[in-house]
Amino acid sequence: MSLEEAFAKLCVSAQADAVAIKSLVFKPKTPKSAAPVPIVVVALQCTSTSPAIIASATGTKEPRLARDELFASHFKCGSAKEFHLGNLLQATSEFKLVIDDAFIKTQDSQVTQLNEEKFVVKSQLAEYLEQFNPQVVDFSQEAPKKQENKKPSPSAAAVNQAKSAALDDAKLIGITVDKKLDFSGWYQQVLTKGEMLDYYDVSGCYILRPASYAIWEVIQKWFDDKIKAIGVENAYFPMFVSARVLEKEKDHVEGFAPEVAWVTRAGSSELEEPIAIRPTSETVMYPYYAKWIQSYRDLPIKLNQWNSVVRWEFKHPQPFLRTREFLWQEGHTAHLTKQDAEEEVLQILDFYAGVYEELLAVPVVKGKKTEKEKFAGGDFTTTCEGYIPQTGRGIQGATSHHLGQNFSKMFNISVENPLGPEHPKVFAHQNSWGLSTRVIGVMVMIHSDNKGLVLPPRVAQRQCVVLPVGISAKTTDEQRAAIHQKAKEVEQRLRAANIRAFGDYNDHYTPGWKFAQYELKGIPLRLEFGPKDMAQDQILVVRRNDNRKYTVKLSDLESRVPEILEEMQKDLFSRAKELFDTHRVMVDEWKNFVPALNKKNVIVSPWCGVTECEEDIKDSSAKRDDGEEFEADEKAPSMGAKTLCIPFEQPKLRKDQLCVKCERKAIQYTMFGRSY
Amino acid sequence: MSLEEAFAKLCVSAQADAVAIKSLVFKPKTPKSAAPVPIVVVALQCTSTSPAIIASATGTKEPRLARDELFASHFKCGSAKEFHLGNLLQATSEFKLVIDDAFIKTQDSQVTQLNEEKFVVKSQLAEYLEQFNPQVVDFSQEAPKKQENKKPSPSAAAVNQAKSAALDDAKLIGITVDKKLDFSGWYQQVLTKGEMLDYYDVSGCYILRPASYAIWEVIQKWFDDKIKAIGVENAYFPMFVSARVLEKEKDHVEGFAPEVAWVTRAGSSELEEPIAIRPTSETVMYPYYAKWIQSYRDLPIKLNQWNSVVRWEFKHPQPFLRTREFLWQEGHTAHLTKQDAEEEVLQILDFYAGVYEELLAVPVVKGKKTEKEKFAGGDFTTTCEGYIPQTGRGIQGATSHHLGQNFSKMFNISVENPLGPEHPKVFAHQNSWGLSTRVIGVMVMIHSDNKGLVLPPRVAQRQCVVLPVGISAKTTDEQRAAIHQKAKEVEQRLRAANIRAFGDYNDHYTPGWKFAQYELKGIPLRLEFGPKDMAQDQILVVRRNDNRKYTVKLSDLESRVPEILEEMQKDLFSRAKELFDTHRVMVDEWKNFVPALNKKNVIVSPWCGVTECEEDIKDSSAKRDDGEEFEADEKAPSMGAKTLCIPFEQPKLRKDQLCVKCERKAIQYTMFGRSY
Repeated sequence: MSLEEAFAKLCVSAQADAVAIKSLVFKPKTPKSAAPVPIVVVALQCTSTSPAIIASATGTKEPRLARDELFASHFKCGSAKEFHLGNLLQATSEFKLVIDDAFIKTQDSQVTQLNEEKFVVKSQLAEYLEQFNPQVVDFSQEAPKKQENKKPSPSAAAVNQAKSAALDDAKLIGITVDKKLDFSGWYQQVLTKGEMLDYYDVSGCYILRPASYAIWEVIQKWFDDKIKAIGVENAYFPMFVSARVLEKEKDHVEGFAPEVAWVTRAGSSELEEPIAIRPTSETVMYPYYAKWIQSYRDLPIKLNQWNSVVRWEFKHPQPFLRTREFLWQEGHTAHLTKQDAEEEVLQILDFYAGVYEELLAVPVVKGKKTEKEKFAGGDFTTTCEGYIPQTGRGIQGATSHHLGQNFSKMFNISVENPLGPEHPKVFAHQNSWGLSTRVIGVMVMIHSDNKGLVLPPRVAQRQCVVLPVGISAKTTDEQRAAIHQKAKEVEQRLRAANIRAFGDYNDHYTPGWKFAQYELKGIPLRLEFGPKDMAQDQILVVRRNDNRKYTVKLSDLESRVPEILEEMQKDLFSRAKELFDTHRVMVDEWKNFVPALNKKNVIVSPWCGVTECEEDIKDSSAKRDDGEEFEADEKAPSMGAKTLCIPFEQPKLRKDQLCVKCERKAIQYTMFGRSY
Repeated sequence: MSLEEAFAKLCVSAQADAVAIKSLVFKPKTPKSAAPVPIVVVALQCTSTSPAIIASATGTKEPRLARDELFASHFKCGSAKEFHLGNLLQATSEFKLVIDDAFIKTQDSQVTQLNEEKFVVKSQLAEYLEQFNPQVVDFSQEAPKKQENKKPSPSAAAVNQAKSAALDDAKLIGITVDKKLDFSGWYQQVLTKGEMLDYYDVSGCYILRPASYAIWEVIQKWFDDKIKAIGVENAYFPMFVSARVLEKEKDHVEGFAPEVAWVTRAGSSELEEPIAIRPTSETVMYPYYAKWIQSYRDLPIKLNQWNSVVRWEFKHPQPFLRTREFLWQEGHTAHLTKQDAEEEVLQILDFYAGVYEELLAVPVVKGKKTEKEKFAGGDFTTTCEGYIPQTGRGIQGATSHHLGQNFSKMFNISVENPLGPEHPKVFAHQNSWGLSTRVIGVMVMIHSDNKGLVLPPRVAQRQCVVLPVGISAKTTDEQRAAIHQKAKEVEQRLRAANIRAFGDYNDHYTPGWKFAQYELKGIPLRLEFGPKDMAQDQILVVRRNDNRKYTVKLSDLESRVPEILEEMQKDLFSRAKELFDTHRVMVDEWKNFVPALNKKNVIVSPWCGVTECEEDIKDSSAKRDDGEEFEADEKAPSMGAKTLCIPFEQPKLRKDQLCVKCERKAIQYTMFGRSY
């Protein structure tokens, strides 16, 4: 039995209520002459493992998250990402093991989750760890102090980053990690505690709870109206596709084959042939387009469907951004002329930009993908690209593809030439375009904060919460009843004015507790109504995004509240746009490229358009281990910059401008960035 | 190699463009002293294989479709259903083989489809059949004459039924089989030629084309508004479920296990554990209900999702009615009290009845399922039951289940007792309820006719078609342009009045051709506009369902057209209701039960409520081979009567009334019928 198998034996099947465990490896500062002794920390996912506490507990100096090299040299394991606790069995030299006291205190029968696939019962895991002489450390005791009101020097900034991301004033119920310091931990909390989403039993799949699904419904309605107005009809094609049909377009299937999920069994019968679950529906639909389109009068055909697709990604899944099943719409159209098709591609892209900018208050840059990044099997891909300030990474928002005649030739989607039978038959010019629930993740990443979700009013399921306040022990029952009564009237008036309002009149919770609750959930406006407001026929309106307060006369309720909602919507957009605009940096010379990238910017550079150069830029901009630089966020890959798009809005190219990287002439400005 | 294997070798993989082949076995009238020589007929599915032609070609008398006994005695095969052409190899005695000339004339490379799974290239099939000395017969030559205007005597009726179901006057483009004579062939044609649906490459899956999906959208909108008004929220749960979770509720999983599709592979990797595709989402959702519901204040929780589910049925699939993937909504709610839950079950059932009666113009009977027929794992099931006049069969419309505390105990969905911690904890009272695209199939079966679809105006994607008429060779260009111009104005005025109108101004087709086209597609109203109408400021409105004509003043357009649409909606419902009401027969004595059933009725009888009696009724009402009765429709199973529901509207039970079947006392009236 190999060591791997020995550890695997401990594992149990996935459990929905498992507690997540992280295992981090730190390397303390060590004199060059000495061999470093790594520190392995096993802790609850939600525990902040402050390096200061680790240092003091283990008697080491400045422990930092270890680089991949250390994993290879000490644990025969390729990288931090691949590392798991089973690797401890194959350690090649000494290491220290630190165990989180909070883990020790969980029940013995508790199932713990080590990574996407591995689940172990706590008692068994503890027993396993026992052999490595662990040291139990209480991370909750000595929270490192925040260094506020003190501008850190550049070197101190790095140290600060390494400190715990725990928020000092976070209540148990609220967000406990700082968006700036642990973005990915923050993202997970803001989604789950904000009740947008829950983690699911099957890895890579997530539950969309009403708060996020309602946003999807708003998007559906808006986009559906737009496409129906240009003649698109909805339909539904099966989720299954036979291997033979799936494999018809070679370039296309190559792009998806590694991620296709296969059904091989029904009940207790093996299927004669395995059947794929659609990763996208080009090959599902086009054989029928070929059948239905018999004359040029049958063109254009414009169908769309709202469905889920499955791409069994093996990379680290992330809620909304990379999931094994996701909801989307996919439009598939076939046109008689190339011009018609191309016009539609851009029309749809405008709608996609509208979803981001008008509904989600997320600014995007529209452009074209390079040959390397375009949709496999199509002619060209247009895209809207967003930007996540915290990580400085670009994110693909939605894509609209012109497939040219590639698929129509493969599937024989052709008609007699309208000029007459003596002319060659015409193959249809096709487009496909899709927008997925990813948009919700982008929106959350951009607007939300350390108090929880911040939702743009136009898409929020609930826009206003009405709360009675200022009720104390001294308040009489009559006063209390009158305030409640009037608050309920406010709520009803708002609803009658088509504002998605609700109230919370529960006396079991204090107003403060409720404030925190609805901030966590991102309700755009809080309307506080107390005795003073009652007396003055007014109500206090508080914006979620910036706590800005407005006193609104009750007589102005129906006119002012929608205005405040719209102002908030616009402010969210402006703030996000400013961040994107100031972090989209023009770089003409290569020497400035990586430094600008490392400052969490995306880069707009003159570029030659050659794929080899594109790959060179990616390689050359990947972060290297220079022995100095410190990787604060263990989850941020040290990736190079990809092309995000060739923006439609082009800066003027200087005559004879060279490519930012190579010796060739630049043919256009291109947007580069690290990306999701 | 067994004979089965020898035949299986011929088979190729499923093809979307395969031509369907039927193989029927007839038994000619034979003197009692002689052994019958069966006639096997191999024909295109669309060929009418008139017994008269078979008789004349083979020199036999009155060939009739053979019963199961003959299949067993002559082909070692259990039943007509199981029979396929491979069985010819194991024939135990002489038979005649007749091949349809139309089959012989198909291209040699054409792939033919023998049944859901078997596909054979035509040349190979022909070669295989050659060994049995076939006789080629041209069924198209001598169509049997219709016997209209002549009331057939009872015995002649049976003979007529056996005759071809081909419609004499059917154009190639239109429906070519008679709803009365070949209901299942008609249903298939009306759906595919009406462009509601197309058959798909993967068996048991179908494409919902815009005409049917648009109906689903109308239903979605209507129902979604209703449930949101009672506090239900939409969400989306993953389509995958682990075996461990799926199997948690034993009764429940037993009901679904044989039909569950399993994903076992992703890309080229085998999954560690197979993952099921949800057949329904009780077990997907309830672990999270247990997690989310922490206090009685978290109740009720009312979630719904619009999704697709997969049930890999092995019975003969039928578009909309029995499909391996289907669209539906599933609502899952958990309540603090049984009373709340029970009230909601009935509220939802009313909405379901509303979908049928108000939108689809389909009358239903509401009631409760028996213990035998209820949802596995639940406490009780309520249902709306429909009726298909052509087959005389009942059809389950939609069900709303009260699950009691069975699932909440299994998944520990519990809260502290509101009365205080000293009282026992409370398990939630749960409901689940679902309505699927099946509703569309029921609607089509009930209203549509031999000219094609008939769609109720409230759900039709397109409600009115405006057509210029009366344009001849003598019409001047100006007149023609003026008529077109005015017709387009009519169309636009209707659309401005929120009527889903369109026009067809194509000069390539005659008005007659267009009439047939839009009748085929079930457009509720045809608006004909010609020179005479132009002169008199009027338009001719023709109803699809009964060809009733209205002359409408153009000035009354916006008021009259909606009225005519609503009248048509009501008339469709009234006609269907009359058919259901007159075919729902009260039977108190067993001797009248089967005769009434055989007259295509559903039966309402006093019943004891005992499951053994229910099974006895089913067995005793199954059609038997009495040597006389003639089974005209090869696709109608000779099934017994099941309980459809215990209607809420109960006839008054006579004192001491006995059960219709057994000696026990009746406890209620129950609706029985052959069913889908």
